Amino acid sequence: MQFHIDALDTLSSARAATITTENGSIETPIFMPIGTTGGVKAVHFRELEDTIGAQIILGNTYHLYLRPGIEVIQEAGGLHGFNGWKKPILTDSGGYQVFSLSDRRKISEEGAKFHSHIDGAKHLFTPEKVIDIQRIIGGDIMMAFDECLAWPCEYKVAKKSMELTHRWLQRCLTRYAETEPVYGYHQTLFPIVQGSTFMELRKQSAEVIAGKNCEGNAIGGLSVGEPAEQMYEMTDAVCKILPADKPRYLMGVGMPDNILECISMGIDMFDCVIPTRNGRNGMIFTKQGIINIRNKRWEKDFSSLDDLDNFASKGTSKAFLRHMLMQNEILGCQIASVHNLCFYLWLVNEARMHIKAGDFSSWKNRMVKQLMTRL
Amino acid sequence: MQFHIDALDTLSSARAATITTENGSIETPIFMPIGTTGGVKAVHFRELEDTIGAQIILGNTYHLYLRPGIEVIQEAGGLHGFNGWKKPILTDSGGYQVFSLSDRRKISEEGAKFHSHIDGAKHLFTPEKVIDIQRIIGGDIMMAFDECLAWPCEYKVAKKSMELTHRWLQRCLTRYAETEPVYGYHQTLFPIVQGSTFMELRKQSAEVIAGKNCEGNAIGGLSVGEPAEQMYEMTDAVCKILPADKPRYLMGVGMPDNILECISMGIDMFDCVIPTRNGRNGMIFTKQGIINIRNKRWEKDFSSLDDLDNFASKGTSKAFLRHMLMQNEILGCQIASVHNLCFYLWLVNEARMHIKAGDFSSWKNRMVKQLMTRL
Repeated sequence: MQFHIDALDTLSSARAATITTENGSIETPIFMPIGTTGGVKAVHFRELEDTIGAQIILGNTYHLYLRPGIEVIQEAGGLHGFNGWKKPILTDSGGYQVFSLSDRRKISEEGAKFHSHIDGAKHLFTPEKVIDIQRIIGGDIMMAFDECLAWPCEYKVAKKSMELTHRWLQRCLTRYAETEPVYGYHQTLFPIVQGSTFMELRKQSAEVIAGKNCEGNAIGGLSVGEPAEQMYEMTDAVCKILPADKPRYLMGVGMPDNILECISMGIDMFDCVIPTRNGRNGMIFTKQGIINIRNKRWEKDFSSLDDLDNFASKGTSKAFLRHMLMQNEILGCQIASVHNLCFYLWLVNEARMHIKAGDFSSWKNRMVKQLMTRL
Repeated sequence: MQFHIDALDTLSSARAATITTENGSIETPIFMPIGTTGGVKAVHFRELEDTIGAQIILGNTYHLYLRPGIEVIQEAGGLHGFNGWKKPILTDSGGYQVFSLSDRRKISEEGAKFHSHIDGAKHLFTPEKVIDIQRIIGGDIMMAFDECLAWPCEYKVAKKSMELTHRWLQRCLTRYAETEPVYGYHQTLFPIVQGSTFMELRKQSAEVIAGKNCEGNAIGGLSVGEPAEQMYEMTDAVCKILPADKPRYLMGVGMPDNILECISMGIDMFDCVIPTRNGRNGMIFTKQGIINIRNKRWEKDFSSLDDLDNFASKGTSKAFLRHMLMQNEILGCQIASVHNLCFYLWLVNEARMHIKAGDFSSWKNRMVKQLMTRL
């Protein structure tokens, strides 16, 4: 994997870069749509590629491991072969879902025992097993297995958990070094900074992670309920420690303003369920602000969702999308998801252009206010 | 509306024709996807037009009247303006939904009183009101208000109901003659043959309907649970009475073999929820036969759904679609619906080509067996 910085902003730590993988290159800052169980919810791959301009998507190891199972994915030639998406894929480690979705989980030094949220069957994820699974899924970027804590938590708990995550990371790295890519192309591994909202722990974790000299680094355990200010403080401090010549990935963030603020701190990669999940529930992001399309205000508003040049944004009226979502029509979920993802990809691409043009900070400050206006 | 017969089959009553409306022409035999509440479930208009090749879609008067309501549709410039579909639209009369969906309905000479299935509110559909509503929805083809009976029913009940439908038809025709198109283009009105599965009543109804000299005629009240043989007998007898120089529309039919058999009797137009509704539940129609994609047999079958040349059929493996539908993913519903509609439109277009080529009957007999094979 290669990482080339194309431009640096002068008034902030924002940068525009290019990540090159054997399955394609990624221009940053980038937003990665989430292909939970192998497909992005309510969005076809053709739309991801042609309409939305996605350059990389996520696959969730936890979901794919449970269904369809690793054997099916391996026989299909990996997730790329299974779902037909040819561009880069990033797989998470399953840690977040083990902690948020599964029933009765138990953490030990060995790993995480959990019961499937589907059928209650017992499973064990160890750092080694999670690397093996991700090898088979075939993501271009794999993630280290980490413990994800709820917020708030006590300092002692956060410290103990961070140390466990660091020991698990070492086991991930060992397994990674011992194993080969399954499908011929290079698979890299990103470690994850933890430490909850304790500055001391975050800095300590960032130092440990930076010291591993991986091809990219991630920040986890944020956007889990803490105030945005704390998320920004942690992200900013960690970005200052993580190497500037490697991509930085902020996991699970966030709203459009969060993304712009974190780009200004030096984050290159984002993922979040917000554009799709909130879209299905009627939250529509536009250049003018946020629309709750279920509001009666839009019942007879026949203007386009936004002036973004694609069939969903320009070709759908607010009134029609409102009607579809009020009727619980799948078509409403499709249109809302395609539009919101178009908006997110437009936003990070605009950020990139402004970084290259040298006016990112003033643009960002203006946009942050505008984008969060409730229309 | 114009109806031009392009070719007649020599061994059957099948014909290939062209219906011309002011919003576009329709090459028959044609299958019309159902846009229940204004959109086809899980299928975007872009896919209907570019991928599926739909030439006309249906709107359900009952659904559109309740939500978003006639006022919204009128302000949008009719259903074409509301949903953005530019090609022909046919609206049903709401009769079928009043009888199948609504709570506590009461039929009288005046019309049908019913309670909305959404909020229980009381409504009254009369023949006059149903014409007024359809005028505002703006369908190119409107349907007369009829009473739909369950099957089986007694002869006396069927006769009384048919006579009521005939009296309602006269009121529809009177209202139709008194009113003008709302949006400038011509709207036509099709009457509907009823009579349950009683040959005498069907023939009598067909004579009455033929005598109205409308621009096209429909057959309702079939495919409601009766054996296919009875449906064929009724359709065949009615087709022989309905004028040959007008389009014949068989409402709510059906499976691929039903469609081919009824084309051979002289039916030109079809609609049915089967390709979309059954698709969402995992029934996939292919040239080789019918697949229940949820069957474990397809878990590791990475071959394409079918060789139809579109992104859904050729670009999706059976294993991937199975996984999506097993996971209740919206994307699975999208792919299944697009594929099945592609298949239905391919099928009627193939029928048309074979009618024109002069080998429809032998092709039809071969296909009927093949298409209904359970794979």
